[in-house]
Amino acid sequence: MSDYAALNPRERILMGPGPSTVPSRVLRALGAPTLGHLDPQYIGYMDDACQMMRDVFQTENLLTFPVSGTGMAGMETVVVNLVEPGDEVIVGINGVFGGRMKDNMERAGATVHVVEAAWGDVISDEAMAKAISQHPNAKLVGIVHAETSTGAHQPLEEISKLVHDAGMLLAVDTVTSLGGHEVKVDQWQIDAVYSGTQKCLSCPPGLSPVSFSPRAIERMEARTTKVKSWYLDVSMLKNYYIGAGGRAYHHTAPINMVYALREALAIVLEEGLENRFARHKQVHEMLRSGLEELGLKYVPEHSLHTLNCVMVPTGVDEAAVRKRLLEEYDLEIGGGLGEFAGKAWRIGLMGHGATRRNVQTLLAALKDCMN
Amino acid sequence: MSDYAALNPRERILMGPGPSTVPSRVLRALGAPTLGHLDPQYIGYMDDACQMMRDVFQTENLLTFPVSGTGMAGMETVVVNLVEPGDEVIVGINGVFGGRMKDNMERAGATVHVVEAAWGDVISDEAMAKAISQHPNAKLVGIVHAETSTGAHQPLEEISKLVHDAGMLLAVDTVTSLGGHEVKVDQWQIDAVYSGTQKCLSCPPGLSPVSFSPRAIERMEARTTKVKSWYLDVSMLKNYYIGAGGRAYHHTAPINMVYALREALAIVLEEGLENRFARHKQVHEMLRSGLEELGLKYVPEHSLHTLNCVMVPTGVDEAAVRKRLLEEYDLEIGGGLGEFAGKAWRIGLMGHGATRRNVQTLLAALKDCMN
Repeated sequence: MSDYAALNPRERILMGPGPSTVPSRVLRALGAPTLGHLDPQYIGYMDDACQMMRDVFQTENLLTFPVSGTGMAGMETVVVNLVEPGDEVIVGINGVFGGRMKDNMERAGATVHVVEAAWGDVISDEAMAKAISQHPNAKLVGIVHAETSTGAHQPLEEISKLVHDAGMLLAVDTVTSLGGHEVKVDQWQIDAVYSGTQKCLSCPPGLSPVSFSPRAIERMEARTTKVKSWYLDVSMLKNYYIGAGGRAYHHTAPINMVYALREALAIVLEEGLENRFARHKQVHEMLRSGLEELGLKYVPEHSLHTLNCVMVPTGVDEAAVRKRLLEEYDLEIGGGLGEFAGKAWRIGLMGHGATRRNVQTLLAALKDCMN
Repeated sequence: MSDYAALNPRERILMGPGPSTVPSRVLRALGAPTLGHLDPQYIGYMDDACQMMRDVFQTENLLTFPVSGTGMAGMETVVVNLVEPGDEVIVGINGVFGGRMKDNMERAGATVHVVEAAWGDVISDEAMAKAISQHPNAKLVGIVHAETSTGAHQPLEEISKLVHDAGMLLAVDTVTSLGGHEVKVDQWQIDAVYSGTQKCLSCPPGLSPVSFSPRAIERMEARTTKVKSWYLDVSMLKNYYIGAGGRAYHHTAPINMVYALREALAIVLEEGLENRFARHKQVHEMLRSGLEELGLKYVPEHSLHTLNCVMVPTGVDEAAVRKRLLEEYDLEIGGGLGEFAGKAWRIGLMGHGATRRNVQTLLAALKDCMN
């Protein structure tokens, strides 16, 4: 290359809100020779990936596949396929991603009723029950399981009962929980769920695993209007991803990203879900006690293990600390988002990166850079 | 992996309608260590990729970036950002992809006036002039430069003049031409253009290079309604891709795919655009005379060099021939799409795969498998 430097990305430890560090095994899968999107060998790999996604989502949902975009494309897929113009919906907002879900729903033509909680808190069962009784015509409730902007870990089981008792559907954002926390799609009766590859699955960003329950499929089949997005229209996508017999071409799937996702999911299943969740809990506790020793306070009462959001102490230049961590230690953590911009740090312990070694390294480096 | 075989994709020669064979150099870039999407080193690589895209599109358009989805997401980005509900638009249809553009425009709320040509033909200047005079209120004309379903190569210069004389904007699909045929965005006054990575750029599928002219930006800034898609809303995306100063997070960019695209574009620019177009022309002519010797007739009068669509001779089982090519020669060509399903083959000569060696190999293998 004459005008451009050779591509040599530094080998950072990624402990921000995502992407997380990708294991070499997944990067090698990513770089395997590209096959055609209708090649039987590729279809086999894709089917494997869809089955592994079902296993990680703990679901029997046939309609489980990777959307050809990042996590936010997964959110949009869920919204545009389940919402029709004029629909009433309820959305829980306790951070940036609930707000995005509302924006997405409104763009799809919905009237959105909001259940709010303070940033860092979770949506209470009582608040959700009240919203459901106030808006009995709502068709769908959207909520964030793992609020990446605050680290809050939303309980879902009670809310799911309330939603289904009212005959509504439940849509859940699991971008920062899938692969690091329990996500029991069938047991919790989640009707539509989306995630990202670049968090606790430790795969590069670029795909969004989604899954739809039979109830959600019924709703989609009863639509009276076309889905607003051609690219994300599940009525066509399903003929490629789960077509019985021949697979109908819709768009060219991101072949190599699917290789990487298949490999990343295989690693998750080899470790075992319960082992993996226990590991995330253990390293979170280790990080937590270390951060508290440094005088750092967690934002949420119910913290995720995978994303640790702490307030920056008064007088500390948070951006300068992150810059030093990156430059002196090749270690990335995240700043605050939205209301917390400039006020919080977000430290990810996700998938491959959720190790005792990384925790100790970060604690030592942070101590150095805060002084 | 207990239940799943190790990932070992065969090393196919990909001579279908895309994806095309990806050079090892690009696969190695794809598998480089993942950086964070706000890491200054990554932003530098992304800026390089955007500048290289400008060079390949032959444009000075600042608003040039890779959409985080495949080519069809690029089409949707152009449509949802430039069309508002109630707008009249004109779309040229002479194959599958013009039809998709119409579908996309309608989902965005447009009234679509169609200019049709037979499959394999191109849209004539006269037909477009007539449509423009019949629908003077249309705001946008959409047309396909390289119709992947038929191999037709659409001339654009005269049509561009007609469109602009009428005060309309011109949107062009260059998925199968960019990097293999001249695409002069500025000289031809194209206002919005999209392509794919997996055709003549010889990068895996997963991104869609797009570019918008200052006229298109004016149109977007004058919108009175929100863009229907949150994921593809250029008013937000531009703050990440071309933000002066800080880069605002919108969604997590597909980091590794951008590495691969940067490398693939570097290869294009190292070869030089004129050399590259000449190579595609030369191997197309070689393939064409070989196919004609085998008794195969081209569908379009104005054929692309990059995609060669020929009718399958009567009595030949086209799917069986493709299967033999794949199984016995590890060589992929494409079947027909839409009207041409079961009737045509589509042979790609794209980017890295557009070589004399591949032409000779295919001709020999095809001769064998047709007997």
